[in-house]
Amino acid sequence: MTEKEYFPRDAGLSTDLYQLTMAAGYWAAGRRERAVFELFARRLPPDRSWLVAAGLEQALDYLANLRFTDDGIGHLRRLPVFATIDDGFFEFLRDLRFTGDVWAIPEGAPVFAGEPLLRVSAPLVEAQLAETFLLSAINFQTLIATKASRVVRAARGRGVIEFGARRAHTMGAAFYGARAAFIAGCIGTSNVEAGRAFDIPVFGTSAHSFIMSFPTEREAFDAYFRLFPDSTTLLLDTYDTIAAAHLATACGPRLRGVRLDSGDMGALARDVRAILDAAGMHETKIMASGDLDEAKISDLVSSGAPIDLFGVGTEIATSYDAPALGGVYKLVEIASDGFREGKMKLSPDKSTYPHPKQVWRAFADDDSMLGDLIAHEEEDYSADGCEPLLRQVMRGGELIEPPPDLRAVQSRARRELDRLPEIHQRLRDAAPYPVRYSERLDAARAQLIGRLSAGSEKR
Amino acid sequence: MTEKEYFPRDAGLSTDLYQLTMAAGYWAAGRRERAVFELFARRLPPDRSWLVAAGLEQALDYLANLRFTDDGIGHLRRLPVFATIDDGFFEFLRDLRFTGDVWAIPEGAPVFAGEPLLRVSAPLVEAQLAETFLLSAINFQTLIATKASRVVRAARGRGVIEFGARRAHTMGAAFYGARAAFIAGCIGTSNVEAGRAFDIPVFGTSAHSFIMSFPTEREAFDAYFRLFPDSTTLLLDTYDTIAAAHLATACGPRLRGVRLDSGDMGALARDVRAILDAAGMHETKIMASGDLDEAKISDLVSSGAPIDLFGVGTEIATSYDAPALGGVYKLVEIASDGFREGKMKLSPDKSTYPHPKQVWRAFADDDSMLGDLIAHEEEDYSADGCEPLLRQVMRGGELIEPPPDLRAVQSRARRELDRLPEIHQRLRDAAPYPVRYSERLDAARAQLIGRLSAGSEKR
Repeated sequence: MTEKEYFPRDAGLSTDLYQLTMAAGYWAAGRRERAVFELFARRLPPDRSWLVAAGLEQALDYLANLRFTDDGIGHLRRLPVFATIDDGFFEFLRDLRFTGDVWAIPEGAPVFAGEPLLRVSAPLVEAQLAETFLLSAINFQTLIATKASRVVRAARGRGVIEFGARRAHTMGAAFYGARAAFIAGCIGTSNVEAGRAFDIPVFGTSAHSFIMSFPTEREAFDAYFRLFPDSTTLLLDTYDTIAAAHLATACGPRLRGVRLDSGDMGALARDVRAILDAAGMHETKIMASGDLDEAKISDLVSSGAPIDLFGVGTEIATSYDAPALGGVYKLVEIASDGFREGKMKLSPDKSTYPHPKQVWRAFADDDSMLGDLIAHEEEDYSADGCEPLLRQVMRGGELIEPPPDLRAVQSRARRELDRLPEIHQRLRDAAPYPVRYSERLDAARAQLIGRLSAGSEKR
Repeated sequence: MTEKEYFPRDAGLSTDLYQLTMAAGYWAAGRRERAVFELFARRLPPDRSWLVAAGLEQALDYLANLRFTDDGIGHLRRLPVFATIDDGFFEFLRDLRFTGDVWAIPEGAPVFAGEPLLRVSAPLVEAQLAETFLLSAINFQTLIATKASRVVRAARGRGVIEFGARRAHTMGAAFYGARAAFIAGCIGTSNVEAGRAFDIPVFGTSAHSFIMSFPTEREAFDAYFRLFPDSTTLLLDTYDTIAAAHLATACGPRLRGVRLDSGDMGALARDVRAILDAAGMHETKIMASGDLDEAKISDLVSSGAPIDLFGVGTEIATSYDAPALGGVYKLVEIASDGFREGKMKLSPDKSTYPHPKQVWRAFADDDSMLGDLIAHEEEDYSADGCEPLLRQVMRGGELIEPPPDLRAVQSRARRELDRLPEIHQRLRDAAPYPVRYSERLDAARAQLIGRLSAGSEKR
């Protein structure tokens, strides 16, 4: 499976040490209860007014493959911290598989702060161990899909190609980032491996070095166009963009495109368009690249610059202006002896809501999104015309259905984001989309705060 | 080799499409000349006044393993863009190995804008193909090592532990990021896999969920301390930090540490220190974590807060305030028929210096760094007491020596950065370190600009 490229070879050790020491703690204390954890972002990153859910397929893949190798267990035994731990714990790890149930918001859906993207119900140790990887997969791909969706919106129908492998945080990040960017509406990637693994269209032009390596720019253009007569995009800015545009007209109308990579993109695009049109090359596309972000693209599009395609690297590949999504994975319930007890933390600015949750989305008559309600999973708002966002995706450690096709996910992302009203979709200063908690959850939280505060006096 | 975790399984396709189309272009044009490319950062990221070189071991590993699999070649043949390409090109790819020579600045060395971290001299196609991966490996690890070195400096001798797996851009980025952070002086990581692969000390405490899962905080503390009597660090802020500190005193002086994760760290550290000291727990360490960066750490240290260790996640793992290093890989020379021709591009703001280069570093009598000179590789400033930074690390595609031990690299980073004068080392508003080009390079560049500009009139 090429999709497993960059997947950890030893999933059990692909985690933070404290997940394993806590696992030992649970094991030694005889804790076998079922726990429910939820993964959500407390706040949206700066300048974001929505998130695009992504990374679920890799998260589930990890859960389905979570196990400890003999090598991995041998390594743990040799760590000083585990020197005092009973052999039984390592036997337990050797047999450990993920046997839990998982609910999730599907990839491509718009989500907001506080909404669980993932809910895991499993024996305490299994649910806890998975925290680091689940957060890593979903934080990262959701981050990139969200950023890419902003860039794609800014381009208003012009194609956006993800170009960022050289600036992504390792080739593995480039690989999964290309996937997330495609979900969010990019039409392709420059990344050959990602194209193969995820069946994403791949695009390429040429580099300055190619042109510089020939005695003249004309010879470089000729060599490339002769070889790729139907798919050549010539890079124009190695020496002088306008002079190069005139050279490019020698290729005639079969030339697929030209790329601008520096200078005043709006003015250059107009001049180059005029040069191409004067040569009858109306079908030859103009691509712009070079440190572009959603603001620059929006300005270029608004100004009417005749640019057909945008190549975006660093900004999408690293979500440059907001390079981390602060998703967290929090215990919300422990069930034992048939009794389910809500759990929450009280830390300043970091307190949570107890109990397993469902997110209900309300729509207006024109099908646009009205607002979301985060409710106890036992509540049902379908009679009010709301739709539940979390669906069960794993039962007893088994996938309920194969992951959806990535193009279907991309379509969902476009369709669903189109339902978000314009005022919530502005690239800056958007009105916050309304999300509230149900009365039942608010009451449960108030009650638990009272109990924990009273309890802390006894502690 | 566990170091190969997260290494691409098909190195040939681990690249941008245009590297492969350009390769076809070179191949079809019969271009077999030797080319020299250099990898450098045009500018330092915002608020950076030095870089710490990192990622070389993985870059060389890639070059030593660069090849095309049958599957990979089969995939390329099926891409529409290659439909018109002769079989001979794919035969050529099947036999392709990296056979070039590489010079590099060693990992851990401080470097500055414009200085080549890597110089590759190889047949044109080989040198070009490697661009994407080399940039990815060195841009990312240098970015993280640089950020981590700022955090480590800010902590002024207190330990810094890298904690960022859940926010890193995939677990693979967490893995190599932990390596880069260790080079820069972090004393360890929470990442178990990285600890194993790179022999980095691993650290862990416990999570809020562990504490919340027990009926009372006291029971959670007891369960953990009983199991790990010599290595327990208790997390204090799940409900109320001060109340938890009092509970922690029940463990007695054997308790290794406590962790503060929210609230006013300075004030809490003082109060908790007083509580621990009153219980005779003078050896119990206080660790602080929670959205810490170099500025907050510097303030805490300056204020005399009794914090012994800092756990830093997002800020190091993503280089949050400057999440990309704009390293580039540029053609500087083509050699054919015994004649070596300097190459450069003229694009606005992106022009380069021709010819292979060496970086010479000058030192003062007290051994502190005075300034760097970027010179033609044929120049020699050793008589002036300068030291050359680039050394040959690969010859004919073979490593000249095994990679250095990571602890030796960490020592070099500390030792060398200590030689950077304080005025260049401030975390903000540092004076730029002096770097200039040699007269020979300046003259060569001026001459080539004249020739290229004259040439562009003919084009």
